[in-house]
Amino acid sequence: MGSECRAKRVLSNVKPMDKRHSYHMTPEEFRAAGNAAVEWVARYLEDVESYPVLSQVEPGDIRSSLPAHPPKTGEPFEAMLHDLDEIIMPGITHWQSPNFFGYFNANSSAPSILGELISAGLGSQGMLWATSPAATELETHVMDWLVELLGLPDLFLSTGSGGGVIQDTASSSTLVAILAARERATGFTTNDTGDLGHLTAYTSGHAHSSVEKAIRIAGIGAANLRLVDVDEEYAMQPEHLERLILEDIAAGKTPAVVVATIGTTSSTAIDPVRRVGEIARRHGVWFHVDAALAGSAAVLPEMRWLNDGAELADSYIVNPHKWLFTNMDFSALFVADRAPLIKTLSILPEYLRNQATDSGAVIDYRDWQIGLGRRFRALKLWFVLRHYGVEGLQHHVGEHLRLARLLTGWVQDNPDFELAAPVTVNLVCFRHVGGDEVNQRIVDTVNASGKAFFTHTKLDGRLTLRMAIGQTYTEERHVRRAWDLIVDAAL
Amino acid sequence: MGSECRAKRVLSNVKPMDKRHSYHMTPEEFRAAGNAAVEWVARYLEDVESYPVLSQVEPGDIRSSLPAHPPKTGEPFEAMLHDLDEIIMPGITHWQSPNFFGYFNANSSAPSILGELISAGLGSQGMLWATSPAATELETHVMDWLVELLGLPDLFLSTGSGGGVIQDTASSSTLVAILAARERATGFTTNDTGDLGHLTAYTSGHAHSSVEKAIRIAGIGAANLRLVDVDEEYAMQPEHLERLILEDIAAGKTPAVVVATIGTTSSTAIDPVRRVGEIARRHGVWFHVDAALAGSAAVLPEMRWLNDGAELADSYIVNPHKWLFTNMDFSALFVADRAPLIKTLSILPEYLRNQATDSGAVIDYRDWQIGLGRRFRALKLWFVLRHYGVEGLQHHVGEHLRLARLLTGWVQDNPDFELAAPVTVNLVCFRHVGGDEVNQRIVDTVNASGKAFFTHTKLDGRLTLRMAIGQTYTEERHVRRAWDLIVDAAL
Repeated sequence: MGSECRAKRVLSNVKPMDKRHSYHMTPEEFRAAGNAAVEWVARYLEDVESYPVLSQVEPGDIRSSLPAHPPKTGEPFEAMLHDLDEIIMPGITHWQSPNFFGYFNANSSAPSILGELISAGLGSQGMLWATSPAATELETHVMDWLVELLGLPDLFLSTGSGGGVIQDTASSSTLVAILAARERATGFTTNDTGDLGHLTAYTSGHAHSSVEKAIRIAGIGAANLRLVDVDEEYAMQPEHLERLILEDIAAGKTPAVVVATIGTTSSTAIDPVRRVGEIARRHGVWFHVDAALAGSAAVLPEMRWLNDGAELADSYIVNPHKWLFTNMDFSALFVADRAPLIKTLSILPEYLRNQATDSGAVIDYRDWQIGLGRRFRALKLWFVLRHYGVEGLQHHVGEHLRLARLLTGWVQDNPDFELAAPVTVNLVCFRHVGGDEVNQRIVDTVNASGKAFFTHTKLDGRLTLRMAIGQTYTEERHVRRAWDLIVDAAL
Repeated sequence: MGSECRAKRVLSNVKPMDKRHSYHMTPEEFRAAGNAAVEWVARYLEDVESYPVLSQVEPGDIRSSLPAHPPKTGEPFEAMLHDLDEIIMPGITHWQSPNFFGYFNANSSAPSILGELISAGLGSQGMLWATSPAATELETHVMDWLVELLGLPDLFLSTGSGGGVIQDTASSSTLVAILAARERATGFTTNDTGDLGHLTAYTSGHAHSSVEKAIRIAGIGAANLRLVDVDEEYAMQPEHLERLILEDIAAGKTPAVVVATIGTTSSTAIDPVRRVGEIARRHGVWFHVDAALAGSAAVLPEMRWLNDGAELADSYIVNPHKWLFTNMDFSALFVADRAPLIKTLSILPEYLRNQATDSGAVIDYRDWQIGLGRRFRALKLWFVLRHYGVEGLQHHVGEHLRLARLLTGWVQDNPDFELAAPVTVNLVCFRHVGGDEVNQRIVDTVNASGKAFFTHTKLDGRLTLRMAIGQTYTEERHVRRAWDLIVDAAL
């Protein structure tokens, strides 16, 4: 085949290196730089309240401070920390500030940060069981722990037919669930033929945008996603869902998936999971439940009513990276039956074959996700669960719920404001009674002050202020001050 | 709407907490634990050679050592480090061992690990420019630096119509490129209608399995993926590609995407990118180039022949997390025109609207990827580029190439072995002349010894040994010993 010749020709282009020294940090240099980095993070967490929450830079400000070209020669670590302070920090919106109330939180914690550090240090790649058995088995284990911690149905335990897997975001979790639903609905033929038949999908107009995005990606088409009506509390109306399904069946369509939400993004509305699940079951439709934010509240037994009916779900997601003190990325996807998921996402080329995989005795998580490579993310949740213990997590999540209730009361007690939606967990939706213009001014004024940050949505076409209370270090005084700022901005 | 009543009812379920203390680490506790974690990583990197490269545990060994239930109360950080050593480490396959030659490497470095630490410490979430302008602008900037560093076509610079974005893995990069191709081929209607028409796709049988996986996910169907013949060096045959495209057009199909590979997974074969690209252009087909592994070699000017023709690509990927000292995850996706990618993946719900987005003056990277949330991954590549400088990266990548050439010579000089494919970059494919059984014994014996780890593939139906030389700390002595082990195992 003449490959020897080609090989020689190709590689002879590479000049031998004269230098034989190494550019790597020595272990001693790593210790010094590492301790400096830890000190930097420690100071950041001490000082985080002093930064404007929302970055105040203009587009292009950061880039214009950076050199146009990559450096020819190496620089000391101190130079990077210096530029981090001088160039990068003004462009950071401080998600870990206790004054951050925007979107849904992406909270974090010290043990999680250190889990990420050790995971990066190990640099193991857990695409297959064999490529780091501990990464796979610890993942399976902490996902089972999570089922217990949140009182989720035993169906989701790996010890039965189900199991959990870590995804990067809820969008990816929802996508792989919808792909499995697509394949099941077409007798596992679409992967091969691309023939989607006439699949339809169902969710409420208040579901997260990732549902529509997944429907697009999967080739089902947004036009085949039915938006089910919601009630006056923005929760899905099951009667309408069933009517849509029946209409589609009558029209020759194949309903493939229903997505219900426990805690919608706009207002944390809780879809009636049990009734929706019963309808999905009745028609043989995959039932996916998105509890990405609100699911963490179930760490408190008194909040487990949220998951009523979750045992009817084929798949379920909760994101510890939102409200369980585990830094991005960590979305937990559970399935009641892992077989259709694996059947949908598995491909086994020769170069990935190994004895453990061939034995069928192990989990290869690459078959549970879009990507092949995987970081060792179980470590950080393991550290979080062990550092806080169940009681610590219950305490802090419970405290966030208490603060949300407190804020709810302040809103209710102020005649200039009104609640805009039920407060089901840690998000308070409210508005000034003066209309959209006043409310927009409130958002802009408070966020521009840098003293607190929150975001908006629209409910019934009206601008609505949202305060999500879930940052790790948020205490009553922060919520109080944010509320005072809002009241003042309305004057 | 009665929401006040509902809110009160719902939240009154939450018991007020009696305890008011915090379970969080104090900054002082974080400093102590952080320094212990840095020390742990430093020692790991010092001792990594002493571990068996391939974990020697049996399925279930790790889980059986873990407590069945999550802890009720918190534990000290020392307990986690203790269990890391005692329980987790035996189950780690050491990708950062200099004796790791399996798959393609996923190498790392000290500055990258510290970039990951600081990114986790900041905990910013860069889904939108506004949610951390520095995360977005540094990403755009280092991706432009990467274009310069690797001598990639200017088309991929953000300053023109193109640009780069960080994805978690090459699988995701390829998926979003294929989605953009799908939409462009259908006049941007498939997202909405789900009508894929009769799309076809093209790649060689030696392309990575992620191409077929993406074709499945996108709903195009594996049956519509044409596998183009390869030549005797496992590179795509452009004549066959054009014949397949013409046949499909004649049959009423719509060719949507061609994927060429610079450095296939089995043998780092280099598809003739220029000729393939010319054919794709001629027929108006999206041209995607996968240089996930080999692309990093272009840090050396003398290796830039690899990318000949890359200016014809609509999209191109290279993974710094494979061979550019940047720990997982960091796959760099470049597009020549960002408009179709954004048009394909963008959805803008009200709760994500903001002035900067509405102005159109900024990049919101959520529109360039599957997920919504994003970690601040640009930081670690920034640290790597600044620590090593261009010359440091050139030195170490060049050294890996030198070692691959050295090993190639040893194989050629030993009459019991033969090269199985051209050595184009840092992967050497070879086999013992004694047949599959002998070669399987070599793999099994060496990997079971724990002294080195490498993997296999099949070429022309014959078992082939693969040694990828790209781990950060691999030196000549490691390659020498691995080769000695292989020769001994064959006796």
